[in-house]
Formats: sequence, structure tokens, C-alpha cells
Amino acid sequence: MTTQQLIEQIQRKKSFLCIGLDVDLTKIPEHLLQLEDPIFEFNKAIIDATHDLCVSYKPNTAFYEAYGIKGWQSLQKTIQYINKNYPEIFTIADAKRGDIGNTSSMYAKAFFEDLNFDSITVAPYMGKDSIEPFLAFHEKHTILLALTSNEGAFDFQTKKVEEIELYKTVIATSQSWHNAQNLMYVVGATKAEYFREIRKLIPDSFLLVPGVGAQGGSLQEVCNFGMSKNIGLLVNSSRGIIYASKGADFAEKAREEAMKIQLEMQDIVNTL
Amino acid sequence: MTTQQLIEQIQRKKSFLCIGLDVDLTKIPEHLLQLEDPIFEFNKAIIDATHDLCVSYKPNTAFYEAYGIKGWQSLQKTIQYINKNYPEIFTIADAKRGDIGNTSSMYAKAFFEDLNFDSITVAPYMGKDSIEPFLAFHEKHTILLALTSNEGAFDFQTKKVEEIELYKTVIATSQSWHNAQNLMYVVGATKAEYFREIRKLIPDSFLLVPGVGAQGGSLQEVCNFGMSKNIGLLVNSSRGIIYASKGADFAEKAREEAMKIQLEMQDIVNTL
Repeated sequence: MTTQQLIEQIQRKKSFLCIGLDVDLTKIPEHLLQLEDPIFEFNKAIIDATHDLCVSYKPNTAFYEAYGIKGWQSLQKTIQYINKNYPEIFTIADAKRGDIGNTSSMYAKAFFEDLNFDSITVAPYMGKDSIEPFLAFHEKHTILLALTSNEGAFDFQTKKVEEIELYKTVIATSQSWHNAQNLMYVVGATKAEYFREIRKLIPDSFLLVPGVGAQGGSLQEVCNFGMSKNIGLLVNSSRGIIYASKGADFAEKAREEAMKIQLEMQDIVNTL
Repeated sequence: MTTQQLIEQIQRKKSFLCIGLDVDLTKIPEHLLQLEDPIFEFNKAIIDATHDLCVSYKPNTAFYEAYGIKGWQSLQKTIQYINKNYPEIFTIADAKRGDIGNTSSMYAKAFFEDLNFDSITVAPYMGKDSIEPFLAFHEKHTILLALTSNEGAFDFQTKKVEEIELYKTVIATSQSWHNAQNLMYVVGATKAEYFREIRKLIPDSFLLVPGVGAQGGSLQEVCNFGMSKNIGLLVNSSRGIIYASKGADFAEKAREEAMKIQLEMQDIVNTL
């Protein structure tokens, strides 16, 4: 999917909601557990109930790998289901990969070709040649961890590197990499005050914003400081939506939670 | 496996060789391709031919994920084969994971419980709470990227953070984390001159050293600067060993290459 197509979807749906599909078997409705693939059945119901309210789904690969081959199968069925039934959705493999060049090429192949995701999250620590293999793919997007939403973000990311905070150095340096137009960035919503600084460096890039909802960030604050002229935001909520209910009505309740956020977003998109 | 058991294996085998199982279907002998699981059959032959010369195997997960579910099955069969037949081997999942706390817990479950690896490589960018879930596992080891062997290492890792290079800050900070005794570190062999500095910070920790062989590092130089009183090194070679031949003799040739390194190591272990 091109960035322009993503922008069109945001305008059409009046939403920049991304729903995290972080499925934990201990948290899903019990009646699903007797089915052959509870994780996929859960995702399918959530997706069918919310696809018109969001522009993106983001399965976090950890939650699938934790169940071994069965989990990997659930991930494959989920992405295939989205690509087949809702091809307008921007899909994100939240995988936080990154390795030396030939290895990153294998990860890119896994997520962009084999699973056919539109994008993947990657960690910057290993630098340019660990990220460029992802950037080489046409109409695929690489979402670089810049400033994350967890406490550990303050261990290194906000430390000053030659007078400039590391996360800013990561953003500025990455803009010089080959095919940098395919980059997006993870910026945690728990630090809305940083968005203003980030927009000075990358006024137009899309930012994937986790941490709204369960992690405590505020949508309004993120938008005040983080929006670009084309929105330029994908705001993720995982647990707040997908675990809204543990009952038979889980998909309906997930839709209600998604709609609450979409309605807030609609007001914001309409002001543009 | 405990660190003490690893040290005993090094002394017994007079080797601190780690063999990287980075299996690319385009590089393995053609006669294997007609078998049902060529990757596993390749690994099995390499393992049977080299297990007495090395103390560790390190499958890089990218090479398995690139083949989807089939790849994940090959990975599972490989680790099960090692654990069953050669339980004295220290196994490393070269996965370079790291995410917010609840997600890192899922990765830890995937690699330590489901697959039963002894250790996993992790990226430090997200800080303390992204790593501590791995450290919580008893007799499991978490190998933190400190200074990697690729060019991109110079993008951020060697930049000064408040007057200290980032990789040193990563090492020093990580030593304050809960269960830090379960930490090891990735230190690239292409920068042997840095080992001296690193040993000032962590005199005893095990270092996983990629980059000997195909990536150009020298074993002797690594040992001169990087060895601890208990060796404290796992030196990895992947392509140089496993792709020594594309013929029917591939396992035999892999053994020859592994033995060359093991013989060098034997002289070094004997000097202790």
C-alpha cells in the first residue's frame, strides 16, 4: 500500500485508529477455547466487528510465537483473512526486528513476501545496514522505533548523544538512509510533549503511536502536538479494545470501544 | 544450563566455538532439497558432524521465519534434536527481540519454555523493562546486543552518550537490572580493540562474538583482548562452517572447518 492510499483511507473512514491484535489465550472468551484455532477465531470476530472503524491492524508477533507453530499458523491465517476480505487495511507486523544485512533481508522476506504485511516495526540499534534491507521493498513501510511508550525508554532513548537525545539522532540519521521515504516511526503516546520536537525533524512522516488507552496516553494531546497536514498518525489501541469483554458479546463490545475512539478521531479529521 | 556448566563444557571440549545455523535454501546441497524438511536434514547432518568440536549452536530465527510455518517447524525440530541428543550443548536463539514488558514476557515464554533454548539475543533500545522479563527465567541467559559486528554499529553504538559511548552505557546500565547475573553480551569481533574497554566494565560476563570468519574478525585478536579467566567467550562462525561445501560431503567439510577453529581454541584453553 502506498502512503497516499493510507491517507485516503484515513480521510474516507475518518479514523486513524490502529487495533493491536495481541491475543493472549488467558484473556479471550472461554467459549472460543474449544474451537480448533481460538486465536484466529477471536481475531476474525474482532476484525469483522471493527474493520470500518480503523485503518490498520497490528498483530504483535510475540503473542503468536509464544504458541509455537500453532501460533504462527494463527498469524498467517489472520493476515490472509485481512488481505483477502479487507484489502484497504494497512497491516503492521509489530515484530521489532533488526539484524545484520543478510539477516534483515530474511526478515523482510518473511514479513513482506511470505506473510504480505504492508509494514513492520524495526529496532534501530544496529544502524543503517540493518534497516536498509527492509526499505528496499516497493510499497512496503518500515516503522522505526524512535521513542517508545515504556519506562525503559528513559534508559537510553532520551540520553543525550553528542548533545542531542538519542531518539532524535535516530530519527535524523535514518532520514539519510537509502529509501528513507519508506520510513515511519514508533513514538509513544505517554510522552506527548516530545511530539513537537519530533515534528521539527519529520513534519510529514507517519508516526505509529502506541500507549493510548491501557498505557495511559491521551488522544487529544497526541493530536495537538503530533498531527501533520495529512494526519500522519496511526494511533494504536490493543487491550482497551480487544479485551473489552470476556463474554459472548466480546466482538460487539470491541466495536463499541473502537467506535468511541473513532468518533473522537472523526472530529479531528473533520477540522483539517 | 548454568554458567558453570557452560564453563565446564568449554574446558572439557577445549572449545568455545558456537556454530550459527543460518540456513538458506539457496546455499545448501541440492540433493537435500528433495527431502521433506531440507533445513532440518541439513542442520541434523551439521550437528552430528560437529557437536564434539563446539559448545553452542545458534540458529538465527530470521532464516526460519523466512520460510513461514515450514521454517518454524524446522526450527522446532532442530532445537528438539539438539536438546534430546546433545543436552550438553548451550543453545542460543539469535532472535534479537525486545518489546514492552508484557510482550517481552511472551517472547521469553516462546523461546525459553516452548522451544526450550538456553538463551536468546535481545536488543537494548527499549531499556530495562523490555529486558527484565527475560532475566526472570532460572538457568536461562539473555544476551544483550552491546557492540555489533556490522557497519551500522557506528551509526549509534559508538556515539557518545553524556561523554560515554552508547554501547558502554548499555553495558553499565544493564548491570543494574534485576537478575543481571543472567546477562551475556553480543560484542562484534570486527572491533577487537574495544574488548579491552568492555572487560573493564564486565570482567567475567560471557561475550557472544559474531564476525569471526565470513565477517573478517580474527580469533587470536579477540582472545588477546576479550578473554576472561574462564574464557568467557562464545565465538560464533556460521557461513564459514556450514557452507564449506555444497556437495554430498558438506557435513564432513563443515567438520573440517569447525576442527580448524577448535584446534586454535584448544591451544588457547590450554594456556589457562
